[in-house]
Amino acid sequence: MVYRRYFEAAVSRLKDERRYRIFVHLERDVDSFPFARWHRDDGSVQDVTVWCSNDYLGMGQHPEAISAMVETASRVGAGAGGTRNISGTSHAIVELERELADLHGKEAALVFTSGWISNLAAISTIADLLPNGLILSDASNHNSMIEGVKRSRAERKVFRHNDLAHLEELLIEAGDRPKLIVFESLYSMNGNIAPVQEIATLAERYGAMTYVDEVHAVGMYGPRGAGICEREGVMDRIDVIEGTLAKGFGAMGGYVAGDAVVIDAIRSYAGAFIFSTALPPPVAAAACASVRLLKRRADLRAAHQRAAHITKHALAAAGLPVLENGSHIVPVMVRDAELCKAASDLLLTRHHIYIQPINYPTVAKGSERLRITPTPRHTQEHIAHLVEGMVDVWHTLGIPFVEPPSHLHVDETSKEHCTYPEIKLAAQ
Amino acid sequence: MVYRRYFEAAVSRLKDERRYRIFVHLERDVDSFPFARWHRDDGSVQDVTVWCSNDYLGMGQHPEAISAMVETASRVGAGAGGTRNISGTSHAIVELERELADLHGKEAALVFTSGWISNLAAISTIADLLPNGLILSDASNHNSMIEGVKRSRAERKVFRHNDLAHLEELLIEAGDRPKLIVFESLYSMNGNIAPVQEIATLAERYGAMTYVDEVHAVGMYGPRGAGICEREGVMDRIDVIEGTLAKGFGAMGGYVAGDAVVIDAIRSYAGAFIFSTALPPPVAAAACASVRLLKRRADLRAAHQRAAHITKHALAAAGLPVLENGSHIVPVMVRDAELCKAASDLLLTRHHIYIQPINYPTVAKGSERLRITPTPRHTQEHIAHLVEGMVDVWHTLGIPFVEPPSHLHVDETSKEHCTYPEIKLAAQ
Repeated sequence: MVYRRYFEAAVSRLKDERRYRIFVHLERDVDSFPFARWHRDDGSVQDVTVWCSNDYLGMGQHPEAISAMVETASRVGAGAGGTRNISGTSHAIVELERELADLHGKEAALVFTSGWISNLAAISTIADLLPNGLILSDASNHNSMIEGVKRSRAERKVFRHNDLAHLEELLIEAGDRPKLIVFESLYSMNGNIAPVQEIATLAERYGAMTYVDEVHAVGMYGPRGAGICEREGVMDRIDVIEGTLAKGFGAMGGYVAGDAVVIDAIRSYAGAFIFSTALPPPVAAAACASVRLLKRRADLRAAHQRAAHITKHALAAAGLPVLENGSHIVPVMVRDAELCKAASDLLLTRHHIYIQPINYPTVAKGSERLRITPTPRHTQEHIAHLVEGMVDVWHTLGIPFVEPPSHLHVDETSKEHCTYPEIKLAAQ
Repeated sequence: MVYRRYFEAAVSRLKDERRYRIFVHLERDVDSFPFARWHRDDGSVQDVTVWCSNDYLGMGQHPEAISAMVETASRVGAGAGGTRNISGTSHAIVELERELADLHGKEAALVFTSGWISNLAAISTIADLLPNGLILSDASNHNSMIEGVKRSRAERKVFRHNDLAHLEELLIEAGDRPKLIVFESLYSMNGNIAPVQEIATLAERYGAMTYVDEVHAVGMYGPRGAGICEREGVMDRIDVIEGTLAKGFGAMGGYVAGDAVVIDAIRSYAGAFIFSTALPPPVAAAACASVRLLKRRADLRAAHQRAAHITKHALAAAGLPVLENGSHIVPVMVRDAELCKAASDLLLTRHHIYIQPINYPTVAKGSERLRITPTPRHTQEHIAHLVEGMVDVWHTLGIPFVEPPSHLHVDETSKEHCTYPEIKLAAQ
């Protein structure tokens, strides 16, 4: 290969900066989740506890999702057979889109092969259809949203993360031109939640269109699992809601929901949609089963929040630097790329706990962390084992502990589910 | 919604230009493929013959692919649970990537959630890692390749479709700077094949890197189904081969195969890869089963070519304007957007034959067509029914017939499989 040296140099740069990623090779098991089999490079296999999955509710392992996939594969086959336009519009996708529109109280929904693509395609298509449009984008938006914003021909301005005053300033400055506010309801690396009511109010006051990414919230928040906007009662005041089928719903794919004419325009103009093979019917059926089930399973959402609260409490009580937030995400700060990788490695090899290090470019340099995602299937025993392992690793590597806060941050809306039990720790 | 009028106008433009797409709502059935159930808007259901699926070999319906999906879903669950970096590297994907690297005789392979994304991500990442790089891109490249080319910061020049002299001219003009030639092995709308040997020779002569899209060839050409480059004996002279798991292999997803260091660089730098949830293990397992099966099933490839040849022969003999080419794709030219849509509608409603019209932007205006894709599961009876229906529609709509060619184009490499039987036609 004639240019090998350029690729070697690119990979070396990552290694030098200690941000070369090594994927952990796992095999899950529906019966034993959150355990999974870790396949080591030497061929040996070890059971580990997975603490960093985005299958937040364990729906990927749920019998109803699995049986929908199995039944549909057996009946209609493994693949879609084409793009949506060319023989790929299966009954399973039509049903799924109806279910998603209903979930969000919108006229229509459109499914993509991933959340990444749904943001890229929908944001750029919407913005390009607004004459002289201006995109106002939250500074902490996900990579896929930034890609959508950049891909559009529209002008863009970035407002400081969750900063309503700054957003308002930019809205005023923009005057009459069409404006699109693009933000997330729940930012996945810090776990903090956007002021969605206030953003909706500003959008109405200054005549802006709103686009919210709810990928870390759908299935998990709101009475029927439609997300933070549902919980806050503003779903009908947000124009386009984007979600994923791959996290809370345990399958794969992304989607947008909104007014029929907006969805029709995205469907008709977005190349990333037009030219991609559709989601396989068995995947659509699994997602659809999850969405339906979670509409009525508030108990699963409560169990999820409870697991997250107990985990946060137990880690913080042990002096680990938990980043406080009002969500189910438990970031434990390391603030150094090399130490973060070493902590992850030691947790895996010594304690058989799998938590991937989160380094740049996923988070800013100096804010490296372990991002822990408890599920309803993590028990108090799992949590006690986690705390024990983390404390040992912090000691071994000399990562600083912090003073446990006198009282922990409690998200008022889910306080009722939180029992704050005593966790018995073997270490400490 | 404050900007409704802009979206209404956008959709109206498409309707005015007669290129508003209506998706046909289908339900396939593993036992009856190529038949599928067409769900009409009024709720009624009608069996139709699908003649435009990209499940070219019917692998989406194959028992081995389906049972791999069913077994894996039942054992490990429906979804991947995260990005490849964050708990999404399943055993099924690791196996699939090994199988794909072996298929193409390359050191490594990397799987994406779609072929569209693999082109976007891989082309832009490779080009951006070549200092002062220049992309030379075939004028007929697919939308996803153009997106990859545009997304890159590298300069790009377009060479006339399959025009070696023009490509050589641009290579000479570029001098010493790093060059990346980006092309397809089989262009899906015309069905014509690239001169892959000659392109490899030019690349070697002028020191260029090569990237070929084989999405309409993998599974279907070459002794083990690795594509046109395998058939032409140049697989080892092409640097990066991109393919899909969604067409010949009947599942979903895309991939690239090449030198380990190139694949590692794409894996490490491509945002579209880093930030997307991985392919679900059951989908990876279905694809893997297909790849393995097709490595040894030259008979399926022969049956596929035979079906395509018989279809072309029968349509051309009936005076229908088949675009000649050396592949399995059967384009029948209409050259008018409205007539093309009307022909498709009449085939569906009167003859229960489903062939989606191919209009702008998929093909240039004035080259609208019906694109027919026979599979090994289309029998001579299906073909006779197709010809009958097409002839009736051509008469009804007054679309011009052409003089049947005195002898039809025969692809030399698959001549042996082609029996050219007499097709009995009820009409004519």
